[in-house]
Parts: sequence; C-alpha cells; structure tokens
Amino acid sequence: MADALAALKERLATVMDLNYAAAVLGWDQRTYMPPGGAVGRANQLGTLRKLIHEHFTAPEIGHLLDELAPLAADGQNDSNDAALVRRTRRDYDQARKLPAEFVAEWARARAISNQVWEEARRTSDFALFQPHLEKQFDFAKRQAEYLGYQDHPYDALLDQYEPGMKTAQIKTLFAELKAGTLPLLKAIVNSGVQVDDSLLHQPYDEAKQEQFGVEVTRAFGYDWQRGRQDRTVHPFCTHFGRDDVRITTRFYPDFLSAALFGTMHEAGHAMYEQGVDPELSRTLLSRGASLGVHESQSRMWENLVGRSRPFWQANFGRLQALFPQQLGNADVEMFYRAVNKVQPSLIRVESDELTYNLHIMLRFELEAAILEGNVQVADLAEEWHSRMDDMLGVTPPNDAQGVLQDMHWSGGSVGYFPTYTLGNVLSVQLWERALAAHPTIPEEIGRNEYGTLLQWLRDNVHRYGRKYEPNELIERVTGESLNVQPYMNYLRTKFGDIYGVAV
Amino acid sequence: MADALAALKERLATVMDLNYAAAVLGWDQRTYMPPGGAVGRANQLGTLRKLIHEHFTAPEIGHLLDELAPLAADGQNDSNDAALVRRTRRDYDQARKLPAEFVAEWARARAISNQVWEEARRTSDFALFQPHLEKQFDFAKRQAEYLGYQDHPYDALLDQYEPGMKTAQIKTLFAELKAGTLPLLKAIVNSGVQVDDSLLHQPYDEAKQEQFGVEVTRAFGYDWQRGRQDRTVHPFCTHFGRDDVRITTRFYPDFLSAALFGTMHEAGHAMYEQGVDPELSRTLLSRGASLGVHESQSRMWENLVGRSRPFWQANFGRLQALFPQQLGNADVEMFYRAVNKVQPSLIRVESDELTYNLHIMLRFELEAAILEGNVQVADLAEEWHSRMDDMLGVTPPNDAQGVLQDMHWSGGSVGYFPTYTLGNVLSVQLWERALAAHPTIPEEIGRNEYGTLLQWLRDNVHRYGRKYEPNELIERVTGESLNVQPYMNYLRTKFGDIYGVAV
Repeated sequence: MADALAALKERLATVMDLNYAAAVLGWDQRTYMPPGGAVGRANQLGTLRKLIHEHFTAPEIGHLLDELAPLAADGQNDSNDAALVRRTRRDYDQARKLPAEFVAEWARARAISNQVWEEARRTSDFALFQPHLEKQFDFAKRQAEYLGYQDHPYDALLDQYEPGMKTAQIKTLFAELKAGTLPLLKAIVNSGVQVDDSLLHQPYDEAKQEQFGVEVTRAFGYDWQRGRQDRTVHPFCTHFGRDDVRITTRFYPDFLSAALFGTMHEAGHAMYEQGVDPELSRTLLSRGASLGVHESQSRMWENLVGRSRPFWQANFGRLQALFPQQLGNADVEMFYRAVNKVQPSLIRVESDELTYNLHIMLRFELEAAILEGNVQVADLAEEWHSRMDDMLGVTPPNDAQGVLQDMHWSGGSVGYFPTYTLGNVLSVQLWERALAAHPTIPEEIGRNEYGTLLQWLRDNVHRYGRKYEPNELIERVTGESLNVQPYMNYLRTKFGDIYGVAV
Repeated sequence: MADALAALKERLATVMDLNYAAAVLGWDQRTYMPPGGAVGRANQLGTLRKLIHEHFTAPEIGHLLDELAPLAADGQNDSNDAALVRRTRRDYDQARKLPAEFVAEWARARAISNQVWEEARRTSDFALFQPHLEKQFDFAKRQAEYLGYQDHPYDALLDQYEPGMKTAQIKTLFAELKAGTLPLLKAIVNSGVQVDDSLLHQPYDEAKQEQFGVEVTRAFGYDWQRGRQDRTVHPFCTHFGRDDVRITTRFYPDFLSAALFGTMHEAGHAMYEQGVDPELSRTLLSRGASLGVHESQSRMWENLVGRSRPFWQANFGRLQALFPQQLGNADVEMFYRAVNKVQPSLIRVESDELTYNLHIMLRFELEAAILEGNVQVADLAEEWHSRMDDMLGVTPPNDAQGVLQDMHWSGGSVGYFPTYTLGNVLSVQLWERALAAHPTIPEEIGRNEYGTLLQWLRDNVHRYGRKYEPNELIERVTGESLNVQPYMNYLRTKFGDIYGVAV
C-alpha cells in the first residue's frame, strides 16, 4: 500500500504542478500581459487544462485509489494520507463524469462569452449577452446532469464550490438571514441618522495607499517573503503552492475604501493558503477547504478586524499622518462610522456589510429559479430590476449596473455566489470561538497585534487545508453546524450601535 | 499526407504551448517571484520540462514524420510545411538520443550547480564550485557522446545553439578575427588618445533612463502592444509566441550605458521574434534561426545603430534635455566617443565592442581544450588568469572577476559562448546588405527613422523564423557564408576614426 500511496502522490504532484503553472499564467494574464498576448495565452491555458484533465482522470489513478480504498474506508483513520485518498476519490469520480469533449466545448464557449460580456457591460446591452448567457446556463445544467444530484440540479453545481452543501440548506439559511436583515435595514433607513462618508471620497495618493496596505497586512501576518501585491482590474488572490501566495489590488485615486479593505480581504485569503501544513504540499489537500471557508477568512480580516473600532483606534493616527490634508480634521469615531456606512445601492462589490448579503440572495434566487425553469434567461434583466426594487428599494438605471455587473455567469459559474454569504456567516462563528479561547483578542487588535488571532486560525483552520469537508471542519472548530444567529447578532449589535437602533 | 501534417501540427502546438508556459514561469522567476517561491517553481518547471520531453519524443511524432518524409525529402520544396518537417525531424532525432533519465539527472545537478555558483561567485571561491563545474563538463561530454559527432565532441554541443556550425570553422573565424583585433587594440592602446567616459558615470534618475529607453525602442519599432519591459538582475528577452515578446533590464543609478544599450540590445532580440511570420505560430519554426543569428539582431540595434554617430546626432539633444545637469556641458561628439571607449577590462558584459570578442575567444578556447583533455577543470582559474594577461594585458584580482563571472557553465551550457561573436560578425554582413539595398539608411537614422532598416530585416531575416538553417539563411541574404572581413573593416574604420589610428 505504501508503494501505491507514493505512486498516487507522484501523479498528483504532476497534476498540482500543472495547476500551479496554469495559475501563474492566469496571474500574468490579469496583471502584466500585454494586449497582444491574449490569443497565445488562451491556447497555452487550453493546453494546460486539457493535460490537467487527462492526467487527473487517467485510469491508473483509479486503480491506485481502488488499491488504497481500505485506507480511506476506515472512518477512524484521521491521517493526512487517509484524507488524501478520500478527497482524491471524490474529485476523481467527479472529474471522470465530465466528458473531455464537453469540458473542451465549454472552455471555448466560455472564452467567447467572457468577451461578449465585457462588451455588453461596456455598452449596457443585455440583448447582446443574452444568447451567450443562455448557453452558459445550459452548460451549467448539462454539468449538473453529468455530475448527478438527488434533490435539486443546483446541488450538483453548489457542491463544486462548497462540498456537501445542499440547496435546501441555503434556502433555509438565507430565509433566516433575510428575515433578520430586512427589519434591521428598515430601522437604519428610518432612523434619520446620516453617516457622512465624504472623507473617503477625496484624492488619495496611490503610493501612500499602497504603503499603508503593506504595513497593515504585514502586521496581520501576511508573509511578504512568500507573497507579493500587484495591480489588477478585478482583484483576486492566487497561489502556486503555500510558499508563493499573491494578492492583487485596484487603487482608486479618489476613493480610499476600495484598495484599503480590498487589500485586507485578499490578504485574508492569502494567509489561509500560506498557513496550510507543508506536509500537504503538492497534493489536492494543499488549499482552502471550500470557497465559503475561504471567504470566512477574507471577511474576518476585512470586516471583523479591519472595520472594527479597536483596529482604527490603533491605526487611524498613522493613516491620518499619511494623509494630513484629507483626514487632519477627522477623528477615529468619524472614520469608523464612515467605513461602516449602510446604504442600499446597486453594485454588489461596493455595497456595505449589511446589504451585501441581499445582493447575494438575489443572485442565488435567480440562479435556482432558472434551473427550476421558473425564470427564463430572457427575462433576467427585468427580474433583476423588480427584485432589486423589492429587496433594496433601488432600481438600476441600466443593465450594466444591473444584471451585467458580475463576471461569474459569463464563465458559467453558477452556484458560486452563495459561498460569499456562507463565508460571512461562518466568519462570525469562528470569531466567537477564537474570542472564547482568547478573550484578549480585541484588546490586542487595539494594540495593533494580531498574533493570537492568526495563530488560532492557523491551528484550527489553516493548517488542515482541504483535509476535512467544510461541514466537518466547521463542526470540529465550532461544535455546531453553520448557524446564522451569531452573524445576525453581530450585525444587530454593530449597526444598532452606529445607527442608534434596536431590532 | 494532409491529415498527417495536421496531426503533426496539433502535437507540436501542445509542445509549443508547454514551452511557452515554462517560459512564462521562467520570466516570473527572474522578475517578480518572491523568495519563498523558489522550491515550488523548480518543481513546476521540472514537471513541465519532463512533459515537454515526453510529448516531443512520443513515437507517434516519429511515425508522422516517417509518413511526411516525402514532403521533406524534396529539396525543391521551399514551403513552410516542408521546412517544418525537416526541422522537426532533426530536433526529434536529437531529442530521442538523450535518455530521459540523463535529462532528469542533469536538470537536478544543474539546479544545485547554479546555486553553488552564485555562492562561489559571491565569495570568490573557485574551489567551492570546482567539483560542480567538473560534473557540468562531464554532463556536457556525455551529451556530446549521446548526440554524436564526426570530428570534435564540441561540434555536437555547438550544433544545439548554432545548427550546422563546426568547431573547425569557429577556429578559423576566430583566428582571423584575433589576427585583426590584436594589432588594432595595440594601436589604440599605444595611440595615447584618452577617451573620457566619466560623463556616463554620474547619478542618472532611473525613471528618466527608463523613459528614454522606451522612446528609443518604440522609435526602432519594438511593438509595446506585443511586449513589455521589467526589471531583472541578468537581463534577457523571452517570448510566449510572436505576440508576447518581453524584454528585461537592469538599471544602475550611477551608470547610464548598462540600461541604455542593454535595452536596445534586448529590443533587437525582441523585434526578431515579433517579426516571425504568423503562419509559423505554434510550430518549432516560430523563433529565431539560431543564437548567432539572434545575436546579429541585438548587436545590430545596440552597436551599429545605437552606438553610431547618426543615432546620437538625432538623439543626443533629447537625452541632454532629460539630464541637463549631467550632460548640459557635453556635446554629441564627446558623448559618441564616450559610449565607444575602448579599454581592456576584466568583465565580458562590461567590455567594449572591440575587446568583447577576445573575452569570447578565451572562453571558447578553454571549452574546447577541456573537451580535448588539454586543460583540466581544476586548472581553469589559473588558465583564465594567464590567458587574460596574454590576450588583454589584464589579470583578475580574484576568481569572481575571472572564471566565476558568467553563469553559462554552471548550467552546463558549453558551446554557447561562440554564438555571441558569430552574431557580431554576422551583424555587419547583414548591415552591409541592408545598406546596399537602401543607401539612405544612415541618413534616416540621423532623422530618428528606422522603418526602412526594420522592414529590410523583417523581409530578409525575421519572417523566416527557423525555416532555414543559419548557414542557408546567411547565404540567401548575403550571397556568401559567414565572413569576418566586413566586421573587421567596420571595427578598423570606426575605432581608427575615434583613436586616429590606421591598422
């Protein structure tokens, strides 16, 4: 069995190296690649992805997994190797369900759809994008059929991003969250309290913005010897192994929040990857457990730390010293309130902590309705308008600020959006466990110290990588399953305080 | 046969895409990769190179080549397809001669040897490097045996960088060049003329150096939509297809020439790759014909254009405007003489146009002598000292400035150095043909116009890529084989003028 395990690991190392090579090409594509490189890069990535699929679905891997089945079957075996066999078995079976031709056909259609979406968003022309979007939803449906499901086709799609999560669970969680959020939002809007965030909308020197972001994330514990930061249009975090984990940022010359909190957010993702047990390197276990668990890390550093009072008590003075003209007349409380202003708005990525989840729910409801056949893609722009009005009381003046705003669907990523809100929910559950273990964490943050928090995350979340399924991991760490109430309590307390409302 | 050709091209496209992917990873490794990424990157590149070797040496490619042999055998067939089959046959047969284990073993040894070389150069400790260098020469000898040769083991090595070139030819060419260079150098040294280049050694703002380099290479015709420039320690040019060809540069804060002429040099390489016929894309023909032909392009733009009087008559004013404090009191003639100062020195990459080739001859002579068994690696540091003294009249104070200065041997690249001088020689042969066709080229350069020269290079050299072997290409363009005399005449005229000597 030791031989089979070594052989499996060697094959997976090849697959992982190819995945990392593709990730380097993807990083370059979105940071430095000159315009002329686009066609060549599409070819290179197409070839790499084809080889990854071929190598990973090779029958030899199936034979090795068969041979190693006794190791995985033993429920008592909590070793990394047993977990590797279990997770590889699952990924392998899933990958084998998708015909290579289907994968290739979708990849080609996705490249075109992406381009059309960019053009459609630029010109706010949903009709231009509609046939491509219909194809992408069709591909997603076919994928669900290939992968198989019991209750809902959406289960099959969701499962790729959030293994083990079911559509029915999401519906329950989201209903609960909506029931909590809408009254709170109503109370805030009706409170008459006006938070002034104009101080965030001033000219801010980009180099100084960057300097502050580097200092903050270094203090958090992002290891710059094993990472770096580059400019991009749609920021992301990527990794080529645990020792090369990169973040990207978009700076605005006249708006402070985007780069500031964006940098904290991506560093939160990055610290997760940097913290995975080195023993898992070059295996399928060497990355975060799921998109939702990943988002719990980025959101924790962005919101629970970065938008907290203790953080700004420790850091506002230094930010003020960097921008005396812009912030010289402000105080820490004004700044804290500004970065936490609640306001129903059109664009998901610019929305505040409270309304953000409503944007997600809208997308989830539409995705599920399309898969169920209750909404047609042709009606999506209209549906978007009326549902935005119902839920947030705002309606987009055009489709660029409506249904065309996100890139996810243009690539056929259906089932991805809910993981953002799952991450928000989980972030507070984890935060409460960390604080229960170390009640001094908020005080430490007030001294610009983050070592205790990071170490707790390392020990309880990061080091395991993908060893456990998300629900297993959550139960291990919190003793319960995903639970909206801690998050809802956090929102009520935080925004109740800022807006003087009690719901 | 059409089917076989399509099948061959599809297989080669995969190989090329993998090669380009490896090139992207190599570019990143030398420009942006954080220190922590080193081990992972070595794994990723090792995996890619292994797959490239496997895919390229697959028996199916041999069968397709057999089937396509009639196309290649027809000497009258000048089509791209016939050339592709001929060149692929040769590369395939060569690659098949090297056992996969030998390739892998050498790759591992090379990685270690590179590291030890860096340390040895830093501490100027030849003894530390010696055992690794012995291994590298041993690998090179074994490689020569695997590849096979008729007259000299060096032929097999040289042939990889300069297909068709023989050691005996190099010996003849170099003897002739040495016989011409040494008396000229002696006359210059004895002329008593002192060229003052102190104006190059002043503080020069890096951003302005970069700006000037961008303007110059844009004027040359380097397409920045299909390229870019980044910082590195040892500058290079790399490409991921003809539409993404990147240059790299090292800027010194107190020395103007390195980045200035280095940028022109790398842009010369880059314009060659950018000019290859798009029809050859994703085949083995889509790159320069050989290292020597490549170097003829970089050297032409760096020296024949960039170090010429007409170029500086057109450009000195703008450089002066960028650096009024440093160059305000200089005139174009002073500047022209400064950038052409001849002075025997220790370091190849810092040496002038005339003595540069002597540095190359030294390395070639030592490489050949080691393969012949006439010099031992153990004696290399001493040999270096005495031969430098004989040829250039200078002796290095330590091995870092002697035998340890270049990285080539640490990676087992034996047979590479001569191509630098072959490029110098060829650059003048091509230049003379271009001027015979378009006598106005120097005048155009004096007006900062390079379109005629670039178009001539595109039509006669660039577009063919690797379609012809170097000697075929040279005969086609110049009507003769490689010939030292035009180059020697150019050196005599140029430096005779500057130093007032006639040899």
